[in-house]
Amino acid sequence: MDYQYTGKLYIEVNGERVIGPGRVELLERIKESGSIRQAAMQMNMSYRQAWQFIDHMNTNMGDPVVISVRGGKGGGKAEVTPKGLKVIGEFKVFYKKFHEFLEESSRQISL
Amino acid sequence: MDYQYTGKLYIEVNGERVIGPGRVELLERIKESGSIRQAAMQMNMSYRQAWQFIDHMNTNMGDPVVISVRGGKGGGKAEVTPKGLKVIGEFKVFYKKFHEFLEESSRQISL
Repeated sequence: MDYQYTGKLYIEVNGERVIGPGRVELLERIKESGSIRQAAMQMNMSYRQAWQFIDHMNTNMGDPVVISVRGGKGGGKAEVTPKGLKVIGEFKVFYKKFHEFLEESSRQISL
Repeated sequence: MDYQYTGKLYIEVNGERVIGPGRVELLERIKESGSIRQAAMQMNMSYRQAWQFIDHMNTNMGDPVVISVRGGKGGGKAEVTPKGLKVIGEFKVFYKKFHEFLEESSRQISL
């Protein structure tokens, strides 16, 4: 038998789950593409769903994590704010530590 | 803003999620009550759901974690096997470490 510890990591804000791996991936893809639509498509997510995630983060993180400039040449653009970049950086550091914890724990399983 | 890391921990067996906090609680309550029905009731879970969890663990953990003796005076009794006791002990140790990790990480959040 191959036993492995696995798990999930989130950041709660005032007791509400606001940040998780999917949302951080969304932020990273918006940062790279400059487009919520593109980022959503890459993740097989509807534009509407992506906007709901962003809206939830913008509302709950204290400062917006994504700002979007609608219209203009070539349609709207989206930008990850300094707060959003901080969220990405913060989460990735602890996600890495979390995975190290899971690997280390898995090596010690005795069942 | 109060930022907190939270998360979930599971044990996968051969790539399949088999053990989690709810199932470990179920095992502990069966151990204490000697009854699947009692344990299920205490957790607001249907007997059927509890049996499905137990069956899934029994099938996937290599050895059964719960054995039930049906019938007899006062109805069937259930017993957590040595394998089941090992699962409880193993998971609780790492769940505690996991929570220490989350607390330590939460103290270091800078957002």
